[in-house]
Amino acid sequence: MTKIISGFSKLTKEEKIQWLAANYFSNQPEIIKTIKQYWNVDEKLQQLHDDFIENTITNFYIPYGVAPNFVINNREYVIPMVVEESSVVAAASKVAKYWSTRGGFKTEVIGTTKIGQVHFMYAGNKTELETYFNKNKTELFAATASITKNMEKRGGGILDIELIDKTDKLANYYQLHVTFETKDSMGANFINSCLEVIAKEFEKEDIEIVMSILSNNVPQCLVRAEVSCKVEDLGGENPEKFAQKFEQAVKIAEIEPYRAVTHNKGIMNGIDAVVLATANDFRAIEAGAHAYASKDGTYKSLTHCTVKDGFFRFWIEVPLALGTVGGLTALHPMAKLSLDLMQKPSARVLMQIIASAGLAQNFAALRALTTKGIQHGHMKMHLQNILNQLGATKEEKEEITAYFDKRTVSHSAVVTKFKELRKPTINWVNFLDEVEVRNILSTLKVDSKPLFGKMNAQQMIEHLSAVTQIANGNWRVDSYVSDEKQARRKPYLNTEGELQVGFKAPFLAEDPTELKFNSMEEAINDLMKQVVIFEAVFAKDKNRTVVHPFFGELDYEYWKKFQVKHFTHHFKQFGLISATLNHQNS
Amino acid sequence: MTKIISGFSKLTKEEKIQWLAANYFSNQPEIIKTIKQYWNVDEKLQQLHDDFIENTITNFYIPYGVAPNFVINNREYVIPMVVEESSVVAAASKVAKYWSTRGGFKTEVIGTTKIGQVHFMYAGNKTELETYFNKNKTELFAATASITKNMEKRGGGILDIELIDKTDKLANYYQLHVTFETKDSMGANFINSCLEVIAKEFEKEDIEIVMSILSNNVPQCLVRAEVSCKVEDLGGENPEKFAQKFEQAVKIAEIEPYRAVTHNKGIMNGIDAVVLATANDFRAIEAGAHAYASKDGTYKSLTHCTVKDGFFRFWIEVPLALGTVGGLTALHPMAKLSLDLMQKPSARVLMQIIASAGLAQNFAALRALTTKGIQHGHMKMHLQNILNQLGATKEEKEEITAYFDKRTVSHSAVVTKFKELRKPTINWVNFLDEVEVRNILSTLKVDSKPLFGKMNAQQMIEHLSAVTQIANGNWRVDSYVSDEKQARRKPYLNTEGELQVGFKAPFLAEDPTELKFNSMEEAINDLMKQVVIFEAVFAKDKNRTVVHPFFGELDYEYWKKFQVKHFTHHFKQFGLISATLNHQNS
Repeated sequence: MTKIISGFSKLTKEEKIQWLAANYFSNQPEIIKTIKQYWNVDEKLQQLHDDFIENTITNFYIPYGVAPNFVINNREYVIPMVVEESSVVAAASKVAKYWSTRGGFKTEVIGTTKIGQVHFMYAGNKTELETYFNKNKTELFAATASITKNMEKRGGGILDIELIDKTDKLANYYQLHVTFETKDSMGANFINSCLEVIAKEFEKEDIEIVMSILSNNVPQCLVRAEVSCKVEDLGGENPEKFAQKFEQAVKIAEIEPYRAVTHNKGIMNGIDAVVLATANDFRAIEAGAHAYASKDGTYKSLTHCTVKDGFFRFWIEVPLALGTVGGLTALHPMAKLSLDLMQKPSARVLMQIIASAGLAQNFAALRALTTKGIQHGHMKMHLQNILNQLGATKEEKEEITAYFDKRTVSHSAVVTKFKELRKPTINWVNFLDEVEVRNILSTLKVDSKPLFGKMNAQQMIEHLSAVTQIANGNWRVDSYVSDEKQARRKPYLNTEGELQVGFKAPFLAEDPTELKFNSMEEAINDLMKQVVIFEAVFAKDKNRTVVHPFFGELDYEYWKKFQVKHFTHHFKQFGLISATLNHQNS
Repeated sequence: MTKIISGFSKLTKEEKIQWLAANYFSNQPEIIKTIKQYWNVDEKLQQLHDDFIENTITNFYIPYGVAPNFVINNREYVIPMVVEESSVVAAASKVAKYWSTRGGFKTEVIGTTKIGQVHFMYAGNKTELETYFNKNKTELFAATASITKNMEKRGGGILDIELIDKTDKLANYYQLHVTFETKDSMGANFINSCLEVIAKEFEKEDIEIVMSILSNNVPQCLVRAEVSCKVEDLGGENPEKFAQKFEQAVKIAEIEPYRAVTHNKGIMNGIDAVVLATANDFRAIEAGAHAYASKDGTYKSLTHCTVKDGFFRFWIEVPLALGTVGGLTALHPMAKLSLDLMQKPSARVLMQIIASAGLAQNFAALRALTTKGIQHGHMKMHLQNILNQLGATKEEKEEITAYFDKRTVSHSAVVTKFKELRKPTINWVNFLDEVEVRNILSTLKVDSKPLFGKMNAQQMIEHLSAVTQIANGNWRVDSYVSDEKQARRKPYLNTEGELQVGFKAPFLAEDPTELKFNSMEEAINDLMKQVVIFEAVFAKDKNRTVVHPFFGELDYEYWKKFQVKHFTHHFKQFGLISATLNHQNS
């Protein structure tokens, strides 16, 4: 328990980082660098962000994107979206544009009330409790006067306080169920403060308050957003078919929880992105939305669709308890900017914008799913992320993107492809292809100088010919390669490795042997002949093996591998082929 | 529809911002400044973040905090938390420390399998479908071979493919229900890619694929975390009482959805903060958790508690589909750092850490709720945020924090208090306090020069004396103040406003009158005498009123208010008191 620390919160930010680096990062300097590279250069601005929570050591970046072309109740919006998942903003933008020419989004706030509860235990007579409650109800309202004063000025406040008997579910358990209107503020602090005062006022000897707290279950703080048009106006190749499959997909989400959860998750991609951009509390929004989806006893889709009488209609009903004042909405400069971008919406208007963003996201997902599948777009973005991580150049990105156009993207597949691209590719000589070999040798001259070694050009050709004759059985070399050596050397022929410069088999004389042919041409013709024989002798006996003086006993496949390396090695010796083919530089 | 734009995504980041500024911000330069001040100074790093999503214009900062002292299965952890809500990190840290001396968190992975489905429509004979499925099941596995190869190397892959008949819920609707193990990757892309291949393989003329997609409902990808100790070891004044109320609070969340939603929301505060810090997908986690909470037909608490035989036990069971490889986990430098900080956990270990963070958060919330209420801690942080926004100095923060220690924090109350503090406080002269007045006048000399006006020092004293005599009834000034004027002027005496420099009552002569006394000392003595008389005459008749030549008919209280302003005005004239007392500078 050496890493347990007291008084951590009292350390300065710098000290906290030092402690973490020492205890969890073996003091690696790059860790501290990473943490600090995310600090804002404006110290005062950084301080503001640091103070939002406790033990802040840096900022976590989430991309801030924008989705233009939303038309909601005939007004244009650019919607700010804060989200780390690719495709979300692109999908929202596309769908917004699509519906902007089909009447846009139509929205309506169904309700805005919120709930808070004082949970308490009471073991006495129920009628007495009711009498006590009714007698003191006015006092309960009055007790909150100093808190509700400002809210009431803005048209909000406590709407009702009810006494609810829950003793059928839990012995002695009752609630004060309080209904609130909190206008443009999310109201969490307001509601909790009111409840705590109400609880204090209500408490007496035989009433034990367990807790007082708002509810994130807000089925009465509800908004509806819809898109609709004639089926024929949906466009595409077959709008009827599209509408039908789309409707099927929604119906499936209405009856199958495994699908509904994912369906709604996609909706929340759009909703949370705007919730985050306005510094609202996405956990509260998530809890409210999913609880609403499960309210009928089975978890269901938040969106619905009908295709009737040639008319396509797609809508969402979702509870959204939001604030456009209070909390961090004005404190976080980018949250403030988000609200400004949306033309300073009231909480009611923000509900409608966010519901539209959720509906748009769901439309995009269902359209993709029911047509070309969701992976296509997803993987395109994912691929770019991986390539960025690998530090791919623009050219590499283009080549790899083209490669994966019809292949399955996975992290490992991309890395493999990338490495392949970066690796110097050896320009192996296909020694069996006479045309290729003659073509390469066409530039070789009698006086060509080698880049390494002592052979001249014709000696090199005759050497290749001689070694081929070993394989052909026409040149017997007395050499012994022990099993141990063979086991160690032979596998090298399976690798991409080249024969090393300076490598010299022990059976070769120290100096080049005398020339056998009168001209380069004759020597080349002989080499070609030996290669033909090479093919023929192994073709005659599939199981034929010949001892190679260095690599040991080789069959046809291994001899070919050796020959490729050997030809390549010597062709390079005379600069007949370039050292490497590197795609990166091609 | 003037703000609808085509090709927005093709614009450069700079062009996007320019377009937004022009169309939604009337080209205010500060908007562009705000957006750009969040760009990282390292262009390459910024590019990396920009490329995570589409239409990125800047970064959204969420504070990155750390909660030390978590002991999970006897190993210490510092948990990284990315969250905008105050108190979350503080609560986690406190609870972690608390349980670190009580055995820490004990956790267990219950399952790790995930689900994906191919949804399809089939109107034919069910038996034929079953035959077709059974005959082709091996082919379905085989079709995914190239995708599953790497996953299988890591011990994952497709575990099972089932045919499920859902026609009782929706006509002709069937599923291929596929079970996956995705090891350390969240697996969304892997699962979706597999499903799309399976669907393609499975599809035939009479089988219409609607969609193929993973499920975020992951009840088999489940983890459990627990804390427990003897009730007596819980500490505090009355551990039995604490345990009992705590258990009640959990029981309430088990049976009352309005409470359960908020209860689980609090859990998600802890869970999502770590999910975000590791760049996992919080929408997926939220959907899975809330769906799990609703799986029995009623929305319920994810945590449970028993107090039995003197033993307190508190645990959570929550589905968490997480990745520690793939996605953004390695791409986002801070996500990578988060994983490093947690000692590079596998997905299984990360499940256990995150479940512990959720349980800790819930423990903190319930402890606060069942004891001093949740607002106390909350509002303390909220207050600091408001003060930061207002740009309060350290001294102002201390003073206002002390002021709100036992008062209800609201944004408007804090602003009011802050403004009050910032407002120049006038150093009003208490003219009734002879000691104070003589003390102030001790520095006045015969040749002291006024800062404004024509009087010399002694004339000023005699003037104060003369005006006091009006109140005393010893100097009758013929002046008439109409009701209208009086109604307009008199209320000014109730304000904090000072008499204006240059103000001159109409009854006063243009030039200072001749001196009445031989020395300053005599003049001061006379002034003191008149003040004593002032007190005496009003004391004799409580209802006494005297017409003031400018403000009209004044009673004792109003005369006093006037005298305070009048004395202060003239003492300032000679620099006897400083202009203002500003707390900010004190």
